[in-house]
Amino acid sequence: MTSLDAVPRASGEPIVRAGAGRSELDVLLHPESLAIIGASDNPVSLGGRPLGLLTAAGYAGRVYPVNPTRATVQGRPAYPSVRDLPEPVEVAMVMVRARMVPAVLRECDAAGVRVAIVLSSGFGEGTGRGAELRDEITGIVAGTTMRVLGPNCEGLASLPASAPLTFSPVLDAARTGQVVLPGKVAVLSHSGGLGFAVAQWGSRVGIGFNYLISTGNEGDLDVLELAGALLVETDTELAVLVLEGVDDPGRLTALADQARELGKRLLVARLGRTDAGARGSLAHTRHDATTLGGLDALYARPGIAQAGDERELIDVLQALDKVPTLAGRRIGILATSGGAGVWLADACRDAGLAVPELSPGLQHTLAGFMPEYGSPVNPVDLTAQFIAGGSFAPAIEALAASGEVDAVVLATSLASAGRLEDDREALSALRQRDLPPLVVYTYTHPAESCVRILEGLGLAWYTSSTGVARGLAAVAPPPLRGTPAPDHPDARPAGGRPS
Amino acid sequence: MTSLDAVPRASGEPIVRAGAGRSELDVLLHPESLAIIGASDNPVSLGGRPLGLLTAAGYAGRVYPVNPTRATVQGRPAYPSVRDLPEPVEVAMVMVRARMVPAVLRECDAAGVRVAIVLSSGFGEGTGRGAELRDEITGIVAGTTMRVLGPNCEGLASLPASAPLTFSPVLDAARTGQVVLPGKVAVLSHSGGLGFAVAQWGSRVGIGFNYLISTGNEGDLDVLELAGALLVETDTELAVLVLEGVDDPGRLTALADQARELGKRLLVARLGRTDAGARGSLAHTRHDATTLGGLDALYARPGIAQAGDERELIDVLQALDKVPTLAGRRIGILATSGGAGVWLADACRDAGLAVPELSPGLQHTLAGFMPEYGSPVNPVDLTAQFIAGGSFAPAIEALAASGEVDAVVLATSLASAGRLEDDREALSALRQRDLPPLVVYTYTHPAESCVRILEGLGLAWYTSSTGVARGLAAVAPPPLRGTPAPDHPDARPAGGRPS
Repeated sequence: MTSLDAVPRASGEPIVRAGAGRSELDVLLHPESLAIIGASDNPVSLGGRPLGLLTAAGYAGRVYPVNPTRATVQGRPAYPSVRDLPEPVEVAMVMVRARMVPAVLRECDAAGVRVAIVLSSGFGEGTGRGAELRDEITGIVAGTTMRVLGPNCEGLASLPASAPLTFSPVLDAARTGQVVLPGKVAVLSHSGGLGFAVAQWGSRVGIGFNYLISTGNEGDLDVLELAGALLVETDTELAVLVLEGVDDPGRLTALADQARELGKRLLVARLGRTDAGARGSLAHTRHDATTLGGLDALYARPGIAQAGDERELIDVLQALDKVPTLAGRRIGILATSGGAGVWLADACRDAGLAVPELSPGLQHTLAGFMPEYGSPVNPVDLTAQFIAGGSFAPAIEALAASGEVDAVVLATSLASAGRLEDDREALSALRQRDLPPLVVYTYTHPAESCVRILEGLGLAWYTSSTGVARGLAAVAPPPLRGTPAPDHPDARPAGGRPS
Repeated sequence: MTSLDAVPRASGEPIVRAGAGRSELDVLLHPESLAIIGASDNPVSLGGRPLGLLTAAGYAGRVYPVNPTRATVQGRPAYPSVRDLPEPVEVAMVMVRARMVPAVLRECDAAGVRVAIVLSSGFGEGTGRGAELRDEITGIVAGTTMRVLGPNCEGLASLPASAPLTFSPVLDAARTGQVVLPGKVAVLSHSGGLGFAVAQWGSRVGIGFNYLISTGNEGDLDVLELAGALLVETDTELAVLVLEGVDDPGRLTALADQARELGKRLLVARLGRTDAGARGSLAHTRHDATTLGGLDALYARPGIAQAGDERELIDVLQALDKVPTLAGRRIGILATSGGAGVWLADACRDAGLAVPELSPGLQHTLAGFMPEYGSPVNPVDLTAQFIAGGSFAPAIEALAASGEVDAVVLATSLASAGRLEDDREALSALRQRDLPPLVVYTYTHPAESCVRILEGLGLAWYTSSTGVARGLAAVAPPPLRGTPAPDHPDARPAGGRPS
């Protein structure tokens, strides 16, 4: 066993257990056989959607629709109950009315199901009815090795297994036009809507995902246990947690410790920060959002961050996914629009980063890369002359290699197709060197061809100055105590830059 | 003359004057003839770009390239000087080296040019060289009726005249793939890069523009004078000012008063809020950004707002363009993702708006539009059941007509093509009634077909909870003093809702 021990809930068996055969975690993420209990013949209804999504995804496991009222469901043979299937299935999706769920779960357990996913709603959320049904689920789980995801969840999607066990429209690329990209970011969310949305927004900026898991009311498995298991047992490098509350803040801290030990990263999206928001969280998944307060010290560590809205979430996710931890908080800005450079400087200062005035020697060097009416102070104004073309790489190299900044941001317009073509190789060569990281900010909507180059280079890129600043702050070391204000050029950790 | 009198600078003739013939403002916005002094044969260089943009836009006026070293420029006959043109032109674009600009401007004045646009840089920005040249321009203007835009600007674009008098890539739809939409929003900006970017971002969310004007170092015409003239003399309903400083904050207040008198709106994008940002502003356009501080009371009025970054700018612009002034600060939230509803409630509270718990009677009514596990408190959780379809309109109507909220936000996923088809007519009918406004928030990237429906309905729509909240706050009346906290259901202006 592993330090995962810190994260499981008091009740329930660990999802990753020593012993023979596949763990419940393996089964959940890579099911070889699947029952859909309450599968609908109507492909548009919630109960009918998973079949179509599984087919479209090319899921290779065996799928058995269970529906006592029909001989076939969407053209497949249907079975009256989970007990009547030709084989014991590993996973059962449960989509029946709330009051039938306990009986169905007992049947699943008896039939050898390893993990049940309860997508049904009505377990104490909303007006409160059905809370006793959630407790009944918890009781059923306590007496067996079967584990339960949900109730009131939207299921999960395992990209490595081509298994969308959900009705989420985000997985329906034919209707949304946006494929979820594969990668090493996992999302674990109380809210199905927001959890899957993270994958859609992230894919649009080149972030790739492996497992998307919604936990709803958490009658058994919860976000923290699952996140711990994913960090330890899978190739997950970064876990995004969308939380409406936790049963024990100490478990969240333990998970953060575990992530740090493993060299992995954590992003907590916090819902219900306000009175009205907390009221909504309680009605939505019965979580107490106030349990997420008072954890600011946790998020001051680089590599662990929080987000208060969906933009901040994606801003920070980009940096956590693509930018190594900075050696200090000093940001160098190279802008081809003076105004964009100014706004970026404002945003960096708002985020507690430093934008130090550069040394006379470095200013002299940088002045060689711009017309005489440009400005080599920081923010550096390369001027609009670069709209007509020209390579950014020499100025980036001079600034990055100066030792005066801990990250470089190129602020420019990538609206014109082809803009980065000439710089692609030079930027790629710079990436190979041991220099402070480069982040790109385009103050116009970027052309597709520019986005492809940025993503090919593995660079974090933003269309927002605030986004850049939030992202860099999430991978920066904490500000020094008792040291000069962060705008001072000496604002960096004791010991200086290591390289 | 008009209340425009308050806005002109101390020096220079008003751009709108009594008397015979067209005003300089008319000439600038609708030039019938144009010289491009310093036009380049290289269509990719800054000096070569305007010719191509004018041709692509279908500009109907007469264009004369001026270049003493060539007989033709991009296939057109070139003239050695503005004095050699076949006719006196109304507008001259000046794109020669800074030290040649004063002489060229004297030639322009002698040749009858009404307005000169100086796109050249090198007038005190950057390291400070050339400041005396800007003063020389101011001096030339003082002795004539010719007016000057710039120097160090990116020119302007007049959509009604199909006249892009600029090198901005934003106007190059062939390369960016994004047409700037026509409408009644004007942008006036110290920064050419950011000013034109506003039009690109705005067009992507259905906002239409008429005049985009960059003023640079403002040797003569400035943002405030031009904004006043546009509000009085043109169909401009909303002026966006992107400012790095003002010579006199009183002129900005006078402009705000004027906008209110006219029933028009104003959005001030403020650059250089921080130490590092202000340092950049000074180097960029010689403006003192500290002159923009201390004006919060100005922005507390509904219809006049400020923005601190480009996202906030577009968020607020959407609301100012499409949402009438609210009767109070109470927001009703209808969500199909409980999590999205929670985050929206958090964002509204952060923006100082109220999200009141609804009355028992209204909760009872709303409960009729959702499954029993939904929640009719505010935020209202209609549940994911709506992913499968169903009309939002009845719940929207019940909430909007209740008298308990001053705006309704529908928070849902519009990722699936066709999602709003069934609701289009019902929403259109609701728009015709005298109800609090509806705003739409999609927590997933919306399908094109949904965006078309929203824009056809004239609804403000957002992909961000913070965006919605900032937008609504910009059109809400100021909070009451000495009244209950804004989350209290009674938090509305004295006198209550008028309708």
